[in-house]
Amino acid sequence: MKCEIIVIGDELLIGQVVDTNSAWMATELNKQGWDVTHIATISDEWEAIESAISSAFSRVDAVLMTGGLGPTSDDVTKPVLCQYFGGKMIFSQEVYEQNLRYFAGRGLQMNESTRRQAEVPDVCTVIPNPVGTAPIMWFERDGKVLVAMPGVPYEMRVAMQNEVLGRLRSFAGENDAILHRTLMVFRNTESGLSERLVDFEASLPSYIKLAYLPMPGVVRLRLTARGKNDAELVKKLDEMVDKLHAILGKDIFCNEDTTLGGALGLLLKERGLTLATAESCTGGNIAHEITAVAGSSAYFNGSVVAYSNDVKNRLLGVPADVLQEHGAVSQPVIEAMTAGLQQAMNVDCAIATSGIAGPGGATADKPVGTVWIAVRCRDQQHVECAHFSGSRSYIIERATQRALLMLIDLLIG
Amino acid sequence: MKCEIIVIGDELLIGQVVDTNSAWMATELNKQGWDVTHIATISDEWEAIESAISSAFSRVDAVLMTGGLGPTSDDVTKPVLCQYFGGKMIFSQEVYEQNLRYFAGRGLQMNESTRRQAEVPDVCTVIPNPVGTAPIMWFERDGKVLVAMPGVPYEMRVAMQNEVLGRLRSFAGENDAILHRTLMVFRNTESGLSERLVDFEASLPSYIKLAYLPMPGVVRLRLTARGKNDAELVKKLDEMVDKLHAILGKDIFCNEDTTLGGALGLLLKERGLTLATAESCTGGNIAHEITAVAGSSAYFNGSVVAYSNDVKNRLLGVPADVLQEHGAVSQPVIEAMTAGLQQAMNVDCAIATSGIAGPGGATADKPVGTVWIAVRCRDQQHVECAHFSGSRSYIIERATQRALLMLIDLLIG
Repeated sequence: MKCEIIVIGDELLIGQVVDTNSAWMATELNKQGWDVTHIATISDEWEAIESAISSAFSRVDAVLMTGGLGPTSDDVTKPVLCQYFGGKMIFSQEVYEQNLRYFAGRGLQMNESTRRQAEVPDVCTVIPNPVGTAPIMWFERDGKVLVAMPGVPYEMRVAMQNEVLGRLRSFAGENDAILHRTLMVFRNTESGLSERLVDFEASLPSYIKLAYLPMPGVVRLRLTARGKNDAELVKKLDEMVDKLHAILGKDIFCNEDTTLGGALGLLLKERGLTLATAESCTGGNIAHEITAVAGSSAYFNGSVVAYSNDVKNRLLGVPADVLQEHGAVSQPVIEAMTAGLQQAMNVDCAIATSGIAGPGGATADKPVGTVWIAVRCRDQQHVECAHFSGSRSYIIERATQRALLMLIDLLIG
Repeated sequence: MKCEIIVIGDELLIGQVVDTNSAWMATELNKQGWDVTHIATISDEWEAIESAISSAFSRVDAVLMTGGLGPTSDDVTKPVLCQYFGGKMIFSQEVYEQNLRYFAGRGLQMNESTRRQAEVPDVCTVIPNPVGTAPIMWFERDGKVLVAMPGVPYEMRVAMQNEVLGRLRSFAGENDAILHRTLMVFRNTESGLSERLVDFEASLPSYIKLAYLPMPGVVRLRLTARGKNDAELVKKLDEMVDKLHAILGKDIFCNEDTTLGGALGLLLKERGLTLATAESCTGGNIAHEITAVAGSSAYFNGSVVAYSNDVKNRLLGVPADVLQEHGAVSQPVIEAMTAGLQQAMNVDCAIATSGIAGPGGATADKPVGTVWIAVRCRDQQHVECAHFSGSRSYIIERATQRALLMLIDLLIG
């Protein structure tokens, strides 16, 4: 099935908000085997909405729409949809009562504008929104479907996962089971990997597809199987995963679809190891990536963001004369940081960074983007002087990814 | 002038990458006084590109396009544009030599696929790309313009700032100066603020516009002036800014358009104060926001991300019995964290957080989203128990924003 996404919101057209909804939706639709062929971001205006719906329906059968369902008077999405599908607006006692309960549960009083959230077109199926007050609306006509969801990312995600994806599968007449396995691979480029997997790909049964999803330093391999029999499918998928392991060995560093912080966390948990970070130029971003993972407190003790030399000395025990002689962005300092960190935090594993994120701070022999990274696990250590180019935020981001991958590399061996 | 943005890339349609380009471009176009009325994200396919261009040109005069200009063979953007504008592909010796220099400067050798970057339609003006090898192409026909830029955010931004915005202004025949002033306001809702500014808005001269740009806890007020005379405009804008200060007083916490981390940094620099953070549930994200600002090392000493109780005790001196008795998410612990931090890091100001980001870790009296936040400046302190709801990442984000605002609030008084 081909799908299109329509994102409504003036805040997106003035650049105030970055649209993360459509990437998330596209990922989920893609996992179902459906292609998203077009994403339109449009204004909260009658003609723009009407014309976007018409264009989308001229190309595909399923349209997912987010935003434009707030209680404020400038939201015209509901009336446009109502007219487009030839209905009239009604007051839904059911939605109203649900919203009453929602408000009561939060100790809030319903006001007139939120009362209007219960007004819905009589030509749609209203799907309950368990985490908000904007109704989710399902419209069907001439074998095509449009689902209107709130633009709040959390509400949209709950709606998609709990209700919309399942209904779309029924709508598409897809009763096949769909199963995914994702392996995270490093030490290979995407093209190098595809050469190594030529025979493997040729050996795949027709009902299992392989997708390459690259990011810096990592390629995700996603196997998608569809078929009638769950147990059979699982067995065949397991077989294919085993084959990939036989071909790629330790280049596979994770058997789940997660972030680098998540993958590192799984390794640490599996091995009962603890971790801390000592960050200079990455400024806490590595700790942030690690703690973005639920349950990370089981293995992550903490971090010292040592932005000043004084903190490197006081909290990490980097000798003042080493800082003086070599400068903070140097191998002796980064090594002293990891060693000091292991002691200060009483951990098995340590990550340390010191570099120049820019735009200022460069010297003749240390240009912007120079980042020393050290990782340790007990008495094993790996140190690297990396060079990144781009903006400050990009350098911080890339140094973070590289540091996480270096520790994963050390642990995998 | 009305503009549309076309974003090309299959990686966006499968959700692998979040499109941050169009929000950034929309902001910049908006600052010029131009409206972005439509953003289309499409696939790297001949028909999709052709049809997106036709649709866009049927509605507006200026189309900005990013992506689809890589050296790999599946990029069809250049040939589509070439045909659409009725030209033929030629080899540009100028682009080729520039790319040679670009590669040489990085110690790289040019290969065949990057050589092909020098192939361009003969019906466009090629704008040099100083930070990459994909050419920037400017097409004009029938009084309409299309600019094709690389999809790499850094390359696109440099192109927009150095070349494209200025050329678009000439294209639009706009010789007026455009000046902006942004004030960051807190302690007011958007609607409350607009009530306070009714008279002010009525007093604005026709050539100065006021825009409200809200985010959680903050409203940015942006004044945009356009006119012939720079000195006059500056004077009038200064007058309007003074008026806003007279009306809003200390509710204005920053006179620049920056992040919360940037606004806090300006206050600290102005007052010669230093800062450190002690983070539990925010896991380093506050330090990350602060160090995302260039030059933050002038006032930011560092952070202790104290994820485990052991680290809270060892590095921040939180007494073990206080942790035992009250639990880590409590007022006594958060107060001990800030006090310990000020000592450990030898700083004037401190921010500390301890909370439950979820989804696990909740107790009967401490639901997910409970976050204790303390801020100190020397011996002044403010402590708050905040409650956020949403996903783990949303709770971390909101707690970070709240903590930064609380210290700004304490400093402003």
